Amino acid sequence: MATVDRWLLPDGIEEVLPPEAARIETARRRVLDLFQCWGYELVITPHVEFLESLLTGSGQDLDLRTFKVIDPLSGRQMGLRADITPQVARVDAHTLRREGPSRLCYAGSVLHAKPQALSTSRSPIQLGAELYGDASAASDIEVISLMLEMLELAEVPDVHMDLGHVGIYRGLAKAAGLSGEAEQRLFDALQRKAMDEIAEQTAALDPALAGMLRALARLCGGREVLDQARMVLAAAPAEVQAALETLTAIADQLAARYPDVPLYFDLGELRGYHYHTGVVFAVFVPGVGQSIAQGGRYDDIGADFGRARPATGFSTDLKTLVSLGSADLSAPVSGVWAPQDGEPGLWDAVRQLRRQGERVVQALDGQSRADAAQLGCDRQLQLKDGVWTVASLAS
Amino acid sequence: MATVDRWLLPDGIEEVLPPEAARIETARRRVLDLFQCWGYELVITPHVEFLESLLTGSGQDLDLRTFKVIDPLSGRQMGLRADITPQVARVDAHTLRREGPSRLCYAGSVLHAKPQALSTSRSPIQLGAELYGDASAASDIEVISLMLEMLELAEVPDVHMDLGHVGIYRGLAKAAGLSGEAEQRLFDALQRKAMDEIAEQTAALDPALAGMLRALARLCGGREVLDQARMVLAAAPAEVQAALETLTAIADQLAARYPDVPLYFDLGELRGYHYHTGVVFAVFVPGVGQSIAQGGRYDDIGADFGRARPATGFSTDLKTLVSLGSADLSAPVSGVWAPQDGEPGLWDAVRQLRRQGERVVQALDGQSRADAAQLGCDRQLQLKDGVWTVASLAS
Repeated sequence: MATVDRWLLPDGIEEVLPPEAARIETARRRVLDLFQCWGYELVITPHVEFLESLLTGSGQDLDLRTFKVIDPLSGRQMGLRADITPQVARVDAHTLRREGPSRLCYAGSVLHAKPQALSTSRSPIQLGAELYGDASAASDIEVISLMLEMLELAEVPDVHMDLGHVGIYRGLAKAAGLSGEAEQRLFDALQRKAMDEIAEQTAALDPALAGMLRALARLCGGREVLDQARMVLAAAPAEVQAALETLTAIADQLAARYPDVPLYFDLGELRGYHYHTGVVFAVFVPGVGQSIAQGGRYDDIGADFGRARPATGFSTDLKTLVSLGSADLSAPVSGVWAPQDGEPGLWDAVRQLRRQGERVVQALDGQSRADAAQLGCDRQLQLKDGVWTVASLAS
Repeated sequence: MATVDRWLLPDGIEEVLPPEAARIETARRRVLDLFQCWGYELVITPHVEFLESLLTGSGQDLDLRTFKVIDPLSGRQMGLRADITPQVARVDAHTLRREGPSRLCYAGSVLHAKPQALSTSRSPIQLGAELYGDASAASDIEVISLMLEMLELAEVPDVHMDLGHVGIYRGLAKAAGLSGEAEQRLFDALQRKAMDEIAEQTAALDPALAGMLRALARLCGGREVLDQARMVLAAAPAEVQAALETLTAIADQLAARYPDVPLYFDLGELRGYHYHTGVVFAVFVPGVGQSIAQGGRYDDIGADFGRARPATGFSTDLKTLVSLGSADLSAPVSGVWAPQDGEPGLWDAVRQLRRQGERVVQALDGQSRADAAQLGCDRQLQLKDGVWTVASLAS
């Protein structure tokens, strides 16, 4: 392998250099502090797990995006996490086993064998918050509010949010007797808004339900969509109507809390790794094709770990958040330049300044005061009347 | 796979739950802030790289500990990082390409296919600092001092340090005409202090050099070892004597700065992934078989990326640091319990408190004030005379 080749990183795998890495660290701390302020507790999940644990409750798209390795100790197949949400659900369902609601958050790298879109990273830093143990809309409203506060903290401009509810399609498909492959096919067609395929696949169903399923693909737009849906779905099963009511309640509460965030509705939109069961949401900004933060309710995922718990949450990519946000994340230029070691009292003076929280950069061979500014120093340590003193760089 | 099996994590792969995860996060921030105070800039390196990049400059033991996957995009073999140091060396040599000295630091998970010892984690959180571009002992003294300050910050008690210098063995082996497999065999025997093997493998060498090589295995102990070595190696090549002088200078400076840290010397000790070239060091505490922080000089590693740069640095595992340290890392119990949403003015009051940095946990279905203490709240939000007010939990 030639020297030049060793420099290359795989496509979609990035390194982050100074000062950008410091900005990401600052944003990471601010967001985790925000989560903490809302009562969310940090968990640290492993980067590899047995594949069955990692993919439990998730669909085929997560499987295809997961790198696999054989564990030399057990001989079993392991996967590198491509999504942290299912891991946190496992922690809640199995390890913590708390009785009441549980608020958890996390921040960590994930790896994608294949990028979600052509231009997206394969090594995002996933940040998110999850609320377990409460099935009410209040929890969905809380996590969506927290997500919007996070975007406000990062000063991401011009955000708008898409909202949907998986229960509407699921309820209709169930009532129409669709299941397994047939339900999956129609689901796929709806995602693509492929009207001809939708018409074809619903042709043999009960005409009323078929009409409602076909209407889903067109039920997208502003707040008026919810009123249209109420009319179109007037004869739908009770669970479909309940889903629509929940979605409406969530939307109205969010509109009251965040009047500046435009809300769009798409009742045929069912994102996620097939693990969502209730409201689903995604935030977009102009000029970026992918959602920049997303989530939803996924009540059944814990069942695979022996304990079904209501669950709702969201996630984002920290690097995207920092690149789109206009929050000032840069540290002020502050530092004291110290001469090379060896002079009496110098080390003690340097140590004392650092213990006070000062940034002190000490000269090495060949460096002089002229290098101080380049190293982010705005002052220098100088011997004055036998005492080491912090002075301006000019003196 | 049975439900119970899905709960298992692979051997040596851990998850960290609340409140331990918060303690680790606090320690992480404090250590990175300490590094920043010394002028070290954060870099974030990727979790996977092409295998050739990842293993460049390192030896076979790192190779055996590295998980490998095929990149579906390029078809090339990638490795999951088992050590961050070579990655940071690549960043310095290739990506940053600065002229003067460069101080870099990092914090991130690594994965080991095989544990370093039976009981050790396969998923440590590696924390470290590296200084590039300066070949003087001042740099070694700086990074070792920083390592000791980090251990002091974490309040790890009873640390002692082992010091050695790879140049002593390398210089003698070179003068004796040993290279390749023969040098490696003798190196291995020295590591194990296998006296018979050392005697056998040096039998055919120049008698003076053979005597010095054999003496290395016994040159271990306190400061007196350096004086003994000066006598034993009096006739050694100049580079061997220079290495011994450097080691002595570093040891004397450290003893002056940290008189409470006992120093031990082992001139046959040559740890690391074969990438070290100068001084090597490791910190131990009673009752723990493995070193808890370690490092050394590795001047040649950048050459494989087209630019040889002097380099020295250290690393540790954050989880070990937290478990051994007695620093108080727990957050004070502080939080405001708020009733369930829906009452006028409540959301605005909650939001305002959070913006002031207060932790506010809002009730969900079935929760009452009785749950407040369990959720880390020491006060509550109460409506008094029409105004939402923070009051004691008892009122």
